[in-house]
Amino acid sequence: MSTRIEGAISSAVAVGQGRGAVPARLASALDYATAPGGARIRPTILMSVALACGDDHPALSDAAASALEMIHCASLVHDDLPCFDDAATRRGKPSVHKAYSEPLAVLTGDSLIVLAFETLARQSHYAPDRVAQLIMTLAQRTGMPGGICAGQGWESEAEVDLSAYHQAKTGALFIAATQMGATAAGQDAEPWFELGARIGEAFQVADDLRDALYDAETLGKPVGQDDLHGRPNAVSLLGVQGAISRLKDILSGAISSIPSCPGEAQLAEMVRTYAERLTPVAPNAAVRPSNV
Amino acid sequence: MSTRIEGAISSAVAVGQGRGAVPARLASALDYATAPGGARIRPTILMSVALACGDDHPALSDAAASALEMIHCASLVHDDLPCFDDAATRRGKPSVHKAYSEPLAVLTGDSLIVLAFETLARQSHYAPDRVAQLIMTLAQRTGMPGGICAGQGWESEAEVDLSAYHQAKTGALFIAATQMGATAAGQDAEPWFELGARIGEAFQVADDLRDALYDAETLGKPVGQDDLHGRPNAVSLLGVQGAISRLKDILSGAISSIPSCPGEAQLAEMVRTYAERLTPVAPNAAVRPSNV
Repeated sequence: MSTRIEGAISSAVAVGQGRGAVPARLASALDYATAPGGARIRPTILMSVALACGDDHPALSDAAASALEMIHCASLVHDDLPCFDDAATRRGKPSVHKAYSEPLAVLTGDSLIVLAFETLARQSHYAPDRVAQLIMTLAQRTGMPGGICAGQGWESEAEVDLSAYHQAKTGALFIAATQMGATAAGQDAEPWFELGARIGEAFQVADDLRDALYDAETLGKPVGQDDLHGRPNAVSLLGVQGAISRLKDILSGAISSIPSCPGEAQLAEMVRTYAERLTPVAPNAAVRPSNV
Repeated sequence: MSTRIEGAISSAVAVGQGRGAVPARLASALDYATAPGGARIRPTILMSVALACGDDHPALSDAAASALEMIHCASLVHDDLPCFDDAATRRGKPSVHKAYSEPLAVLTGDSLIVLAFETLARQSHYAPDRVAQLIMTLAQRTGMPGGICAGQGWESEAEVDLSAYHQAKTGALFIAATQMGATAAGQDAEPWFELGARIGEAFQVADDLRDALYDAETLGKPVGQDDLHGRPNAVSLLGVQGAISRLKDILSGAISSIPSCPGEAQLAEMVRTYAERLTPVAPNAAVRPSNV
């Protein structure tokens, strides 16, 4: 599945890069921002759900998976900007604004957002209803008032609605992943909300744990950003062991929420595999001084 | 038509602002960035073309006009950022990053881009084919490799393809305006390319003339930005009188390019009206020292 997802993303990005008279540095930055990727978790979940639902229209699942990953990569590029996290590195290499420039980083994010919707719209002649629904779902989980833009927007508020904040900030693209997977395969998206929401919660808790337990070199990005920016964090609220047991509860809830579908068993297996990978082993030596 | 366009834009923005638990400052910034607007030239052109083609689906023309204006406003918000034009004012009031903050300005632009596509996708059940085409056209004229993002991207290149640069930077959204107007009304978009491209050229020349002839107070934005950033400029190439006569040529070319349609005569009249408004009267007193 990984090969299929990488192929889909690189084809979609190549369309945005164009040929002939194009601004070459921006074209190059589109590739730099999207490859090599991280774990490609969101498109993998999307594709797993699509497969579990029959994947009767593979080109549409491919487009949906790449569109979702491009939105995720765009959000990373903009989040890394000096006015947000001011991150010099991402995935072990210089962040886009460090490697290219701040203007090109803004434009890379903007271009990837646009390209995500274009990639979906290109499939419209095959399945117009599904494509329209995919665009709606992706837009609602990306923009305002409930998508990842809203999630970032909460960080500029004096009073934060924690539930709205978490669902928008981390949950939104996981909800998009499960729902778009179902839609791409022609199934009703609504029953797939809960699986996405719970996976999103699990990743938030796992991320807080990783941030608390590992150092910057292991992660390839600056750690302790939550503490730095005063954001709420599962580890500060529950402690390390409390957060680990919360993570396990969320993941078993995720598995029980999987709607009945032909590939239900394999999908549960996939979530279990992620659960193992997500649950960190906490060697004492790796605990950062502030957590000892 | 102005009331109709303002109504369409404010309804579309209200959807993005949401209700209940939303990040209030970002929601407010969406409105601040889109109202009161400038001349609303792009949606006015779009709507004029749709009306000339019969406007058989007014909700779709409204959605297309607001989507296009939201993309334009998003581009202004991002262009004003410190890493681009570093503009403190826009339309006579503080720019979004000055009024709200730089993070909120990045998010406002991102959210408006997403909302533009969502606004179109919402009309899909009425006319799925037209909506898919509208999304494709808007995406291609906004992103990479040929939209306004590409236009900005050229400004980070050592060697600039001037024709590609101008078409992407200024032409793209005018081409989108004429083509989306035709598509919204169910007509073939292709014959409307030239009108959009020529109006775009005319605005570029008019903008260069205004920049050269008026002061910052009159324009409500910083002047001389082209000189400052070393961008090519019609006035530096042709002189003031040369640029004025070039503008007239372009606009008569625009009028002759109007495809045959029920409202052809009114549309030609509209372009003539714009032509008069666009052609600046150059009082000697207003000429900036560098042009004397």
